Amino acid sequence: MNVLGIFCVRACSGLVGFRTATRVRCLHSFPGITVAQIDEEVAKLLELKAQLGGDDGKHQFVLKTAKGTRDYNPKQMAIREKVFNTIIGCFKRHGAETIDTPVFELKETLTGKYGEDSKLIYDLKDQGGELLSLRYDLTVPFARYLAMNKITNIKRYHIAKVYRRDNPAMTRGRYREFYQCDFDIAGQYDAMIPDAECLKIVHEILSELDLGDFRIKVNDRRILDGMFAVCGVPDEKFRTICSTVDKLDKMAWEDVKKEMVNEKGLSEEAADQIGEYVSMQGGRDLAERLLQDPKMSQSKQACAGLSDIKLLFSYLELFQVTDKVVFDLSLARGLDYYTGIIYEAVLTQAGVAPVSNETQQGAPAEESVSVGSVAGGGRYDGLVGMFDPKGRKVPCVGVSIGIERIFSIMEQKAEASAEKVRTTEVQVMVASAQKNLLEERLKLVTELWNAGIKAEVMYKKNPKLLSQLQHCEESGIPLVAILGEQELKDGVVKLRVVATREEVRSIHSAHIMFVLSHTDTQICLDSNETLKVCM
Amino acid sequence: MNVLGIFCVRACSGLVGFRTATRVRCLHSFPGITVAQIDEEVAKLLELKAQLGGDDGKHQFVLKTAKGTRDYNPKQMAIREKVFNTIIGCFKRHGAETIDTPVFELKETLTGKYGEDSKLIYDLKDQGGELLSLRYDLTVPFARYLAMNKITNIKRYHIAKVYRRDNPAMTRGRYREFYQCDFDIAGQYDAMIPDAECLKIVHEILSELDLGDFRIKVNDRRILDGMFAVCGVPDEKFRTICSTVDKLDKMAWEDVKKEMVNEKGLSEEAADQIGEYVSMQGGRDLAERLLQDPKMSQSKQACAGLSDIKLLFSYLELFQVTDKVVFDLSLARGLDYYTGIIYEAVLTQAGVAPVSNETQQGAPAEESVSVGSVAGGGRYDGLVGMFDPKGRKVPCVGVSIGIERIFSIMEQKAEASAEKVRTTEVQVMVASAQKNLLEERLKLVTELWNAGIKAEVMYKKNPKLLSQLQHCEESGIPLVAILGEQELKDGVVKLRVVATREEVRSIHSAHIMFVLSHTDTQICLDSNETLKVCM
Repeated sequence: MNVLGIFCVRACSGLVGFRTATRVRCLHSFPGITVAQIDEEVAKLLELKAQLGGDDGKHQFVLKTAKGTRDYNPKQMAIREKVFNTIIGCFKRHGAETIDTPVFELKETLTGKYGEDSKLIYDLKDQGGELLSLRYDLTVPFARYLAMNKITNIKRYHIAKVYRRDNPAMTRGRYREFYQCDFDIAGQYDAMIPDAECLKIVHEILSELDLGDFRIKVNDRRILDGMFAVCGVPDEKFRTICSTVDKLDKMAWEDVKKEMVNEKGLSEEAADQIGEYVSMQGGRDLAERLLQDPKMSQSKQACAGLSDIKLLFSYLELFQVTDKVVFDLSLARGLDYYTGIIYEAVLTQAGVAPVSNETQQGAPAEESVSVGSVAGGGRYDGLVGMFDPKGRKVPCVGVSIGIERIFSIMEQKAEASAEKVRTTEVQVMVASAQKNLLEERLKLVTELWNAGIKAEVMYKKNPKLLSQLQHCEESGIPLVAILGEQELKDGVVKLRVVATREEVRSIHSAHIMFVLSHTDTQICLDSNETLKVCM
Repeated sequence: MNVLGIFCVRACSGLVGFRTATRVRCLHSFPGITVAQIDEEVAKLLELKAQLGGDDGKHQFVLKTAKGTRDYNPKQMAIREKVFNTIIGCFKRHGAETIDTPVFELKETLTGKYGEDSKLIYDLKDQGGELLSLRYDLTVPFARYLAMNKITNIKRYHIAKVYRRDNPAMTRGRYREFYQCDFDIAGQYDAMIPDAECLKIVHEILSELDLGDFRIKVNDRRILDGMFAVCGVPDEKFRTICSTVDKLDKMAWEDVKKEMVNEKGLSEEAADQIGEYVSMQGGRDLAERLLQDPKMSQSKQACAGLSDIKLLFSYLELFQVTDKVVFDLSLARGLDYYTGIIYEAVLTQAGVAPVSNETQQGAPAEESVSVGSVAGGGRYDGLVGMFDPKGRKVPCVGVSIGIERIFSIMEQKAEASAEKVRTTEVQVMVASAQKNLLEERLKLVTELWNAGIKAEVMYKKNPKLLSQLQHCEESGIPLVAILGEQELKDGVVKLRVVATREEVRSIHSAHIMFVLSHTDTQICLDSNETLKVCM
């Protein structure tokens, strides 16, 4: 055994060009090998690799974040917080709870959920123990959570990062680590009421974020399948034709048709019939017309979908959101797990250019493309059942807000705006006009902190008044409380409005606290040198 | 070559018992092998493993989260949100900005930062491209961020999950995925002012969270090193003796001494001298006494540390936090990167039992141990320099709040309390008393949502009034707006306080909106059946 072993090791180094297929066959013919043995072999090889110095001995340390990821600086975080607050505010207004799940799942949990995209999943290294992968979205962990805890009813939101080893396009807000903001309603309810609420939520969020005009396209997987059936698409080609239809938002119909006919082997007649349907857009009226359509009405599936679209629009009217919603037969959406209604929101404003360092550093103009889709979702009634040992289904409908694209737009707006983005919320800076007043400054700032006021003090024994005032201007602190020897003698504090340089002298620290506790808006002085609050 | 290759593969399966050391030597004697070749070998073996079915062909799908991780359910999230709000509120009150960094870093970024604990780092699988690891803490990514962006001044907080392949003890709030809440001040400032603010922050947070009595122990790495020097510890044993001292919070002095003498080869005299010092606790007075101590005063390092402790306490007095802070010479803290002041906060309340399903399901009483340390930190002036190409240093001091332990305590408190934890913030449920009022309910709830009111409606066409009221009671919704045919005729809404069942009938939806927009507190009725707000 040992002799063979040594020989093997020596031989391995000459093995590299050998094709895996051959080796695998060869190993299979050797029945004794187990996974545990492979693990051990792998561990040994990797240890050897570590000893060789990681990458052939060359050690050039690069100071960067991983490919496709980014840090958020304080300004970006301030924008992110604002966007999150709007979104979370809306989710809470609609009575949603929130949950959290780990960033990695058992590899098996993600297996078989994403079709071809599975290759984009990040796996963790096999360091012994379980095989783990980083989550690819929040929907599969949500379904796993429901099945594991036998939950049949929940309205929850989940905001967290997901991971995809995709080709990053950071100028267009496409990263390998990015946030998803998901809202989902699980439970057996009357048709289209929760579905309509998801659309209401998209409408509220996009309106409130003030990103410009938008459209929410809706369709139904059953209408698509019914349409394919009546147009003569063979059953086994539904999925692949569906993914071609999905390209209509980026490709002209002529090219889509070419792909269907030349690449996917569809008949020209079938393609033309599909072409007629997918050009249709409308509202409730279109659903009604299609229910009368001699061809479409032959499909039970399509009729079920069309009736639900009708019902959906009646609820959307009550929710006052039909101004932005359009029934669009070309909407297909990629993911396999949708079973009913699907939707996608797009910004219709022409060419929103993205913000990024790359662009600023003179990237070509072609990079400035529209950010397109900013929200999407649909009904997935089968996913939870995939996790339940007894296959019990929990109907679900949900929506995911495409937050990275929204960040890009908000960053660009902030960049373009004259208004400075504040990265702290400090209300008052405690400053001194003379030397040796550190103790007095620390005492006053303590009083303010203890009263719940957001306050700062410079970490210097004797900072210059000018540098203290400059700090206020740079970071947007509206007020500065200035201590001087005369003020200390008189037991007062001088309070200055940084923007206008107006001052009042006869103010006690308790007064500052009172004023600041009762407003977080700006403070200014009236003509009698008394403080007043400006809303 | 091919013949050798096949032979190798056949031989490999018999190889498993073979010791790595031998193999590595053997491979080293074979100069042609490169890391790229090893990578290829590893990839092939892993592919084979995948073909064999992951774990020796047995495929039993387990519905669980990864070892050492957990989901947060809505109740836990409500508690978590409350704790985070308190902590973030404090960080903001002190003028901190926030940043975010990716969950994984280049593996090299983490290399050489954690000493022995490096083995606990999660690596990502080598799927081509960069070698990545999950972050182990937030401090190293912070230092990388500062160096990469050439930032020399910042006061920032960062709340995010970190990952350690440690032995989980979930009953004690120790997980493999857990939150850190870090506050750090980077920059060249006058001594001990930022350090004192970190302690003030710990004091504020622990007071506000109301976790019971606590102590903040402080010490200084320079005092420890000086103490070791004057006690006759050889230079090369400083670190290892330091880590033994660190065990004093869990072990009796006798056992610590035994480890020093028997395991680490320290002389009995040196150990006894250390024993005398590490039993000392006090405040500014102790620092003054030790500055006069004939032995301690011989160490320049110790004196520098002791003078800074004195200065620190003078600032802590101004910050009004000396009641909880104690200078404790036994505090050592594990991490290598501390260079000055160190501190740690412990809850002093006897035996805070942890909350977890394991305990509830009858785990032995020994599991109910004290949660111990809930915050810790110190000064690390060298870490940023490790990342800067020119080694430029940025002095830093910071604190990390041990949030998982705090969650455990808060969960336990919530469990023990009679008060129900609400998981939504819904203010009013829109209900109907009769059938066929879905449209009316959807109209009213739309009015409320559009006015910013948190409102819910059941997703049923004809829900029973009782089940609508039950939902309110279960989820703590304080008010229910009830629509009936009579109310619709009269153009009014009946508003009921769920807890007291008091009702007013003559209310228009605009009135509900007015009341609910101007308070998120409880609403009750006075004797005249008019609504009033109870604070």
